Amino acid sequence: MSDTSDSFIGINWGSSNFRAHLIASDGTVLDSLEAPAGVATVQRDGMVEMAARVRTRWPHATRVYAAGMIGSNVGWTDAGYVHCPAGFDRLCDGLVPTRMGELALRIVPGLACVRERDGAPDIMRGEETELLGLHAGGDLGDAPLVALPGTHTKWVRIEDGRVIEFMTAMSGEIYDRLTAAGLLASIVEGPGEDGDAFRDGVRTSASRTLGLGALLFGARARVIRGLLPKADASAYLRGLLIGSEIADALALFPRGDDVAIPLVGSPAVCALYAAALEELGIASRTVASAQAIARGFVEIDARVRAR
Amino acid sequence: MSDTSDSFIGINWGSSNFRAHLIASDGTVLDSLEAPAGVATVQRDGMVEMAARVRTRWPHATRVYAAGMIGSNVGWTDAGYVHCPAGFDRLCDGLVPTRMGELALRIVPGLACVRERDGAPDIMRGEETELLGLHAGGDLGDAPLVALPGTHTKWVRIEDGRVIEFMTAMSGEIYDRLTAAGLLASIVEGPGEDGDAFRDGVRTSASRTLGLGALLFGARARVIRGLLPKADASAYLRGLLIGSEIADALALFPRGDDVAIPLVGSPAVCALYAAALEELGIASRTVASAQAIARGFVEIDARVRAR
Repeated sequence: MSDTSDSFIGINWGSSNFRAHLIASDGTVLDSLEAPAGVATVQRDGMVEMAARVRTRWPHATRVYAAGMIGSNVGWTDAGYVHCPAGFDRLCDGLVPTRMGELALRIVPGLACVRERDGAPDIMRGEETELLGLHAGGDLGDAPLVALPGTHTKWVRIEDGRVIEFMTAMSGEIYDRLTAAGLLASIVEGPGEDGDAFRDGVRTSASRTLGLGALLFGARARVIRGLLPKADASAYLRGLLIGSEIADALALFPRGDDVAIPLVGSPAVCALYAAALEELGIASRTVASAQAIARGFVEIDARVRAR
Repeated sequence: MSDTSDSFIGINWGSSNFRAHLIASDGTVLDSLEAPAGVATVQRDGMVEMAARVRTRWPHATRVYAAGMIGSNVGWTDAGYVHCPAGFDRLCDGLVPTRMGELALRIVPGLACVRERDGAPDIMRGEETELLGLHAGGDLGDAPLVALPGTHTKWVRIEDGRVIEFMTAMSGEIYDRLTAAGLLASIVEGPGEDGDAFRDGVRTSASRTLGLGALLFGARARVIRGLLPKADASAYLRGLLIGSEIADALALFPRGDDVAIPLVGSPAVCALYAAALEELGIASRTVASAQAIARGFVEIDARVRAR
């Protein structure tokens, strides 16, 4: 039986969705409230309304944390970014207290880095709580490189419980937008699953002979010339995008010898990344992520209570 | 005064537009008929209607040629592709006679290649008539590499009046689609012109440290971190896309020593490519292309009459 007397509220408030949880101090999720009320879909009064629902549902929880786009420059309050390397201690230093109507809460800052290899900046917001939570729970082992596949996939270099640096690739969004209409829409059928065409795409882009601008058009040339069945074109396109991204991540970050890369995300997308990595001779393992952000909030709450 | 007795009709019939010309044997355009009746916008009965307008307007011209998407698998008749290396003689071997209502015409085939360096296929349709026309007219000099900047930019290796091989990069479409909505739409202001931000983008992608999936997201990270003014973000994005494309073209094809690369296309887009090439230490020159396709049709017509 979880101890509910010390329970607190953790809110994962992203662009599209709002997910609030009543969390016990051992990380057990006691109750949840979800709504399609992301910061891209509701205005400030809509945010206050969601805050009121949280207050009404769990009137006795006094400590409330929120992570994700709610802390961006298009959210409720810009909670800024903490510079890497950063772990939970630095995240907690950067918590931004605020109030939405009757709800007092602390917003978790994002992370910013300047990568060592190419000197370029990158940012994350929301993933830091999930990722560091998984690490604290032991789910990532001592892997130095972790991938969070999704619309904007993050590849994160992690060391001693701190995020050192990371890279974001917008492969998922590029696929979605370029196949929704235009030249590539005409060749796309089917969901784009693992198979020979997918792996051919992975190898082609990971070789880095050509960039995506030329390779993506090449998919259409292959279809027109009868070298790629139309039913396989979406798989080939996904392979090109993911292969290019993996080559970039490996060019930037050490992945450790004989360490399977943890993949954190939806099972279907993680399976594609696992297949791509396998094709390139790299082991990976999918990490269950359903409770990851709750685990992150537990670490944050423990530090806040200890201060 | 042009000799009009030998005049013929050349139609540039693309995805979006229909442009027909009455052309004298010396290449002078005597009259034109234009309409937004591309193959992506009209059905087969609409094509027959355009053919009837051509027949009515120029009743005495007996030889009619059409190039462009009208010969694709979504056009009137699939005119197929001639394999490279190919010049006008091979194009004329591949002319496909057909009839649209009362109009008898010959459709120019496209070109297909398999590139030497990466073994990948590529295709073009419409550009072959324009490009070989410019070459026949002496406008390209003896440049071994020519660029046709546009939504789908072509980089073409040409030798002795024949197209040897080529590469298509969909940089223009990637820019248009990724900035119309989604993550990058939020950082794009202004038209994206030459300047420090554009050239920074060119250098960044041409160095080939990272692929476009990571670099394009990086543009947003730069804006959020205050390293790139929002007003310059579109220029930076265009620079990334064009720089990547140029690096690919130079990796595939020899460009000749001390030969300025001819750029064929709209002046505004050619100016961006010229700036990008300059930033990479490569000379270029813009070639007026208004009459290029008429010049190509003259070469085709001369060969047809001689047979």
